[in-house]
Amino acid sequence: MPVLIFRSGSDRTQWWLETFRERAPEIEVRLWNEPGDVSEVTHALVWDPEPGILAKMPNLKLIISLGAGVDHILDQVDRPPHVPVARLVDPGLKIGMVEYVVYNVLRFHRRMPDYRQQQEKQLWIERYQTLPSERRVGILGLGEIGVACAQALIALGFDVLGWSRTKKDIHKVGCFYGDEALKAFLGQSEILICLLPLTPETNGILGKIHLAALPAGAYLINAGRGAHVIEADLLEALGSGHIAGAALDVFQTEPLPKGHPLWSHANVTVTPHIAALTLPTTAGPVIADIVHAAQAGKPIPHRVNAKRGY
Amino acid sequence: MPVLIFRSGSDRTQWWLETFRERAPEIEVRLWNEPGDVSEVTHALVWDPEPGILAKMPNLKLIISLGAGVDHILDQVDRPPHVPVARLVDPGLKIGMVEYVVYNVLRFHRRMPDYRQQQEKQLWIERYQTLPSERRVGILGLGEIGVACAQALIALGFDVLGWSRTKKDIHKVGCFYGDEALKAFLGQSEILICLLPLTPETNGILGKIHLAALPAGAYLINAGRGAHVIEADLLEALGSGHIAGAALDVFQTEPLPKGHPLWSHANVTVTPHIAALTLPTTAGPVIADIVHAAQAGKPIPHRVNAKRGY
Repeated sequence: MPVLIFRSGSDRTQWWLETFRERAPEIEVRLWNEPGDVSEVTHALVWDPEPGILAKMPNLKLIISLGAGVDHILDQVDRPPHVPVARLVDPGLKIGMVEYVVYNVLRFHRRMPDYRQQQEKQLWIERYQTLPSERRVGILGLGEIGVACAQALIALGFDVLGWSRTKKDIHKVGCFYGDEALKAFLGQSEILICLLPLTPETNGILGKIHLAALPAGAYLINAGRGAHVIEADLLEALGSGHIAGAALDVFQTEPLPKGHPLWSHANVTVTPHIAALTLPTTAGPVIADIVHAAQAGKPIPHRVNAKRGY
Repeated sequence: MPVLIFRSGSDRTQWWLETFRERAPEIEVRLWNEPGDVSEVTHALVWDPEPGILAKMPNLKLIISLGAGVDHILDQVDRPPHVPVARLVDPGLKIGMVEYVVYNVLRFHRRMPDYRQQQEKQLWIERYQTLPSERRVGILGLGEIGVACAQALIALGFDVLGWSRTKKDIHKVGCFYGDEALKAFLGQSEILICLLPLTPETNGILGKIHLAALPAGAYLINAGRGAHVIEADLLEALGSGHIAGAALDVFQTEPLPKGHPLWSHANVTVTPHIAALTLPTTAGPVIADIVHAAQAGKPIPHRVNAKRGY
């Protein structure tokens, strides 16, 4: 019987346990703080685990990330290198990310922050509006989530561009790839969405030079990782008006420290890393499938290439 | 040659004129304030025209509303009763309304007003979130715009209900119709969207009794007409918390008067009747088609039934 040890970042542990026990009773689930005999643990489902614990489980066969990103696992210095890591590609997580992205694109496209500020002054002024077909939205990162966001935005009529490390060909998306094409891509992105994985290559990708490559008055949506953005450079670009507004769900330090200037910036919207939540109702069956595949010696779905970083 | 007199509610008159002259040069367009010989005017394209003017045009064959609603025309006491009225069903207008509705549904579904209030206090708290398939969204009014909004919400995974005066059958929408079914429909609408036409039957439809029929903690989006909502009753329901939030684009008096309590209510978002803007790029060809149909003696697209009111 596979024994799965579980560490959640949220307070919904009980919901997870109940869902597992109901939907995958053949998997024994143990809590992170009550591991029992660690030599019995075969699988780990974790978010941001404390270092040193996984290394003490001699029979661990697989580590599954409780989210789409795996940097919180790969970055551990004492991670057992022979144990494969899988990303969670959960339909619920994808749904949540699409919601967050579509919401923020529509918000900027329809100038809702301007109307919000008008409301505070009780001003009734109609602003110039353009059609979505005349609005270019750029997506940094064309993985499963990036493609799902592109499709939702295309369905609403937006002109969607995408950038990825390697060449991709996605229906109705203007695809750019590789370092050479990044600036050309950014130069056309009136609303830029960061959905990249965090790797050494993407760390700090949205700093001074790349932010300056965006069109004047561009908007930024970061639902990737906090480390993609150089926060001091973003604050400077917001201050000059080159960036008209930002919706940030992730930060260099989380929780975002009290008093941080991003909290109180008039043109910044802060959410507490909630763009996509992993819900047990949708993720449970996906996790069970990964465990079963690993047990049966079949290829592990969404196995991570540790060198590539995603 | 048809002579179209034009009255816009916005400041984009020049854009309209240029678009018409470029795309429909066979129609002579005159401005409302420079009508020339009024006996030459054959068609009128108007938004909220001053009373008395249309009645002075003896050869008027058709009045077209510069928007989806026609109450601003039908309510005129001296409207020439023999002149047919057409609604504008403009793809751009539909796109704008879908954007406004999807934006606000996602905003309430994802508890963005709560996160906004948390940001003001610099609080990092993850809120409970549900899947869109577990969120019931009710649409009052299943005309072309209501159906387009329903389809966009279904594509995002929401559980969509709709109510209309007469029986309708729309794919994947739980359809209710008639006065008897209204309360049952409201009782299931966690997020209620009003997209009704304004008629004597729908005037004041969202008052005390019907607001009370909504589930506790429901959200209201009004993109219909201000007169659909009894504002005093809405303020009371917001005060008690029975209605958790409202996004209002239309009001009993527009512009919403300074000092009106809706401007400053913490759980109300006010926009200045901009949910759907009629843009000449998309509306121009539709208007030209209506004029040509009327000229050729063909059935007029989207002709209004004046008795029914839409």
